[in-house]
Order: sequence, then structure tokens, then C-alpha cells
Amino acid sequence: MTDERVRVMLVMGEDPYHDLFDAELLDRLDALAERVLPGPVDNFDAPAVREGLAGADVLLTSWGCPPIDRTVLDAAPRLRAVLHAAGSVKGHITDACWDRGLVVTTAAAANAVPVAEYTLAAVLAAGKRVPAFAAAFREHPGSVAWRAEIPGASNYRKVVGVVGFSRIGRLVVDLLRRFDLQVLVADPYADGVEVEAAGAELVELDDLLSRSDVVTLHAPSLPSTRHLLDAGRLALMPDRSTLVNTARGALVDTEALTAECERGRLHAVLDVTDPEPLSADSPLYRLPNVVLTPHVAGAMGTECRRLAALAIDELERLAAGKPLEHEVRRTDLAVQA
Amino acid sequence: MTDERVRVMLVMGEDPYHDLFDAELLDRLDALAERVLPGPVDNFDAPAVREGLAGADVLLTSWGCPPIDRTVLDAAPRLRAVLHAAGSVKGHITDACWDRGLVVTTAAAANAVPVAEYTLAAVLAAGKRVPAFAAAFREHPGSVAWRAEIPGASNYRKVVGVVGFSRIGRLVVDLLRRFDLQVLVADPYADGVEVEAAGAELVELDDLLSRSDVVTLHAPSLPSTRHLLDAGRLALMPDRSTLVNTARGALVDTEALTAECERGRLHAVLDVTDPEPLSADSPLYRLPNVVLTPHVAGAMGTECRRLAALAIDELERLAAGKPLEHEVRRTDLAVQA
Repeated sequence: MTDERVRVMLVMGEDPYHDLFDAELLDRLDALAERVLPGPVDNFDAPAVREGLAGADVLLTSWGCPPIDRTVLDAAPRLRAVLHAAGSVKGHITDACWDRGLVVTTAAAANAVPVAEYTLAAVLAAGKRVPAFAAAFREHPGSVAWRAEIPGASNYRKVVGVVGFSRIGRLVVDLLRRFDLQVLVADPYADGVEVEAAGAELVELDDLLSRSDVVTLHAPSLPSTRHLLDAGRLALMPDRSTLVNTARGALVDTEALTAECERGRLHAVLDVTDPEPLSADSPLYRLPNVVLTPHVAGAMGTECRRLAALAIDELERLAAGKPLEHEVRRTDLAVQA
Repeated sequence: MTDERVRVMLVMGEDPYHDLFDAELLDRLDALAERVLPGPVDNFDAPAVREGLAGADVLLTSWGCPPIDRTVLDAAPRLRAVLHAAGSVKGHITDACWDRGLVVTTAAAANAVPVAEYTLAAVLAAGKRVPAFAAAFREHPGSVAWRAEIPGASNYRKVVGVVGFSRIGRLVVDLLRRFDLQVLVADPYADGVEVEAAGAELVELDDLLSRSDVVTLHAPSLPSTRHLLDAGRLALMPDRSTLVNTARGALVDTEALTAECERGRLHAVLDVTDPEPLSADSPLYRLPNVVLTPHVAGAMGTECRRLAALAIDELERLAAGKPLEHEVRRTDLAVQA
């Protein structure tokens, strides 16, 4: 009797593999599909990999997957789908994949979860001025006489501006709904009715910046969004407002932001920067009004299992002939991360 | 025609008054009640206050209200209710108030909101190791080579232990429900079925401490809860787990916690301490694994308006003869903050 299961090859680095799959997820995978090679591979050149490619229906990919170019595709005549257990597919999906008509899916929806959670924590902490209070307490141990010098700590009816009604932006809006906050959204592609249904208000970017107590970026990094927040736009933000960036450093003019933070006019929570990391002499490392983390908002450690679970869900649908839920099309990539 | 409205006197400090009431809330108050004095008072001794007391049906109180003792009550023959626009009523409600049969309400439910929000932000940030990453980045500017030395950053299926199924504890459990977290509750007075209905699991305190990645305290400070987390209990917490305290400093043995944090074994987010503030030479101010804030989790600034709104809601019910929703009884005070 022939094994009728889909034949799948795992293409990713060894470290991502261990973060992505626990025993439970591997069991699920094996119940659905036959692995053409037992472990993950991170290149398409070894003879065993070539042989595996010849029999593979599906590549289940993640961080460390090399570009899937014409040579790879020529070696994989049965291949029909690339299910990515990570966010952006721009690193490995080539024009040759689209020309071949491959089905491509992304786990960006699962990667959005920890980013939105990090953002929620940053927004609530910023509203309550937690980073400022913590930094001041280190400066003034033993006294709270300075407490009144940090005004405006409150999350009641504050205004949060979400730049980009993207997958992550929508999730952030949804998480914020539970709180007594007014949420503004700016996105040239968003529909005002949809934004309103999500509990927010669609406004122009400049309007959002001038009205928000906290601004959080969830726009893709594209040539057109480079320095979306330049010196002029940053100047629109109210005194003592906070910029949260978990998207991409290039969305912000780092020099202009540094000047605003050095003046103490703006606060910032930056998980991404431009360049990344910032050079060691950047004032942003030592300013009390800036929190810097090393690009950790996305899926890390056990959070990666959500990505594998999503890719396996797609594989299950594919095997059952059901419509996929996280397909990416060639035309999406112009406006997506 | 006689003014049939309830006659109310505002008893609180000038600063709380300005945080509690904006024009909209004063309009609501005035539509419901007649103020016996135009502004707030913070003592019961001035002749005008005595005169006001003589006509008052209700005291709307907050921070700065002196104890309402027998002398005050003797001067207030019409008084039937004390509606408190703050948390604990222990500072101003005396035995004489209970003996007189006064109705007493608290705005603790409204004060719980910002505390639960601060806690949520702290829990999500701790799971993702945001304080540790931020502190390490300050120590090592320009490099991310150290990133792998901070393991376990994830909010996926982590365990959060909520100590105290109090008003705030319940709200924290409810906020955490939205996330992929396992929530444990320890509370000698809680009902397992109720805890389960809230999405958590009722366990013994020692069990909670040994299983939780983040422990957050929401128990009242009572003689019986002093040093609830002593050296032995802190030792049960897993390596690199985080203690969040927004309740009262006396719940924790500060010296034992300091030792655990100095060893780097535990992380802490402390909005309250014992003593408060800590003496200037406490290592907790400078440890990279400790975040200290100066007792700011409760209602501050505009967040106080929730307290006033709640007290006015109660006043509205009282005036309409409807059942109150936030009544405190003498017997509650033995197990409440």
C-alpha cells in the first residue's frame, strides 16, 4: 500500500527548527505528511537534499531557507506549495516561484501576536510613565520628592495612534479595545468603515501625530515609507508623548528622533532602529526617556511554535483540498513587509 | 418649591478634588445632588463645615478625608451614607460610623483598573524579558552578541501566578485571559469553581510559586499576610522568574528578595516596597533585573475620574432607592485592604 500522505521537506536553520517544533507539533506533522528527509536542511546543494527535492510536494520553510530559485525548482518537479513558518517571504520566494504558480503561505499572522503583545505592554507602560519613573528612581534613590515632576501618568482616555492598519496594526487596535483609550489609525490603504468597526478612527498621519499621547508604528518598510517619521513629522508629536517602534528602523529618521529625545521632548520605546544595532556612541542607549530592546518583539523561543502550528494548519487544509487562509500573492509584496 | 435633591458634602484634599472631578463630572453631581458647600473640605472643625454637616445626607469622600468620629456624626443628624471616591475606607470610617448604621461604599473597583493594567504590562514585559534586554543593551551599546545570554523570552504558554483572588486579582486574571498564558491563582478564601470559570486554576500558594514564570501579588496587607513571601517561599520560585508587587510592600520579606535579586536568581517589578521608599543604599535601585516605580500603579491624574464617576453612580442609585453596587460592611474589613 502506497503512503498517500503529502511529502514535505523542512527547510530552515537548526536553531529555528528546535524553536519551531516540539514533540507535539512533529507528531501532528507526521500524521499529515511524510517527511522526505528526517531533519531540517538549510541548503539545496547536498546530494541527499537534491534527492529529497525530487520527491517533495511541499516545502515547509522558516528562517535560514535559501532563495528558492529556478535551479531548485527544476530539481523539484512535484513541488506545489511553500508554507513559510515565519513572517516575510521576500527572502526565499523568487520570481521563479511565482512564474511556476506555486502556492505560498506566510505565518505572519502568528508572528503578529508577540509583536502586538509587546506593543500593548509598551503602550500601557508609556501611558503610566513606567520607564520614566523607573529611570528617575535610579537617579534619586531613597526619595520620591521628584514624583510630581513626571506629570500626566494615566491610561484613562489617552490617545493612542496606530500607524499602519496592517496585520499587526489591526491586532494592536483589537488588544487596545479593552482599555479606556481612544485609538486613531493612519493608513493610506485602510477603509474608514473597517477601522471604525475595529473601534478606532481613521485620520491623516499628521493629524494622528499631533493628537496622540503614544504613537506606535506598524507600517511596512518600503522605499515609500523610508523616514515616514522625519524631523517635521516628529515635531508634530505633543511634548512628552511616546514613540513605539516594533516595525522597522528605517521608518524613522534616527537623527531627528535622537535630537527630540535628547531635548527630553519625546519618549521612545524602540525594538528596531536604523542602523541596527545603533552605533555604541548613540545617545539613545543612555537617555532616561528611551527604552531600547534588541529586536525581540517578534516570535522568539517557544513563541515560534505558533508559526509551526499555523504552517501545519495550512498543510492540513492543502492536503484536504480546502482553501488556505494565509496565502501570499506576488502582488501583495509591493505593500507588505 | 423645595429642592428635593440629596444634600452632599465633598470631603477630600484640594489636589485629589482636582484630579477626581472635571466639569462633566461636576455637572453630573449637581444634576443629582445639592452641594451643601461649593468646594471640598478636608477638616470637620471650621464653623461653615459644621453648618454644612448639619444639612448633609451624604459625604462624598476621598484622599484627605479625616476620620469620621462620633463628634462629626453628632453634628450630622441627617447623614446616612459615606460614598468613598478612593480605595480603602479604613482611614476614615470609624466604629462610630458602623454603630450608626451608615451606608459605606468604596471605589476600589475603579482603583483596581489601573493597577490591573500596570500588572498586565509588567507581566507581558517580564515574559518577553523587556527589562532585562533594556538593561543589558545599556551595558553593551553597539552590540547584540549578548542577546542569547537572556534566554526564555516568550509569552507563549508561560505560567502566571496570581496571589489573591481579590478585586484586583480577578481583574488581572480576566485581562490575562486574552493571552496564551496559563494562569494559576492562590487564595485561601477563593472558590475553585469560580476561579476555573474565570479561566484560571486554584492551587496552593507553594505550588503556585514553584510553577510560575511570573508571580503577581494582589493580597491585602494584614497581620496574617505580613511576609507572605518570606525567604523560604521566594526560594520556591524558579530561576529567572519574576515577582511583580503592586499590592503592599509588607507582603514580601524585602531582605530575602534583595538577596535573590542580587544573586540574579529572581527578577522583580516593584511598585510598592517595605519600607517605602527603600533606603537610598538598597541594591534594588541599581540591579539590572529590578524595575522600581514609586507607588504609581493605582489611580493617578485623570484615572481618578473613574473613582468620582463610580461614587456618583452610587449616589444616583442611592437617590433613586436602588441597591448599591459597591457597599462595604464592617465585617469585610478583616480580609480586605
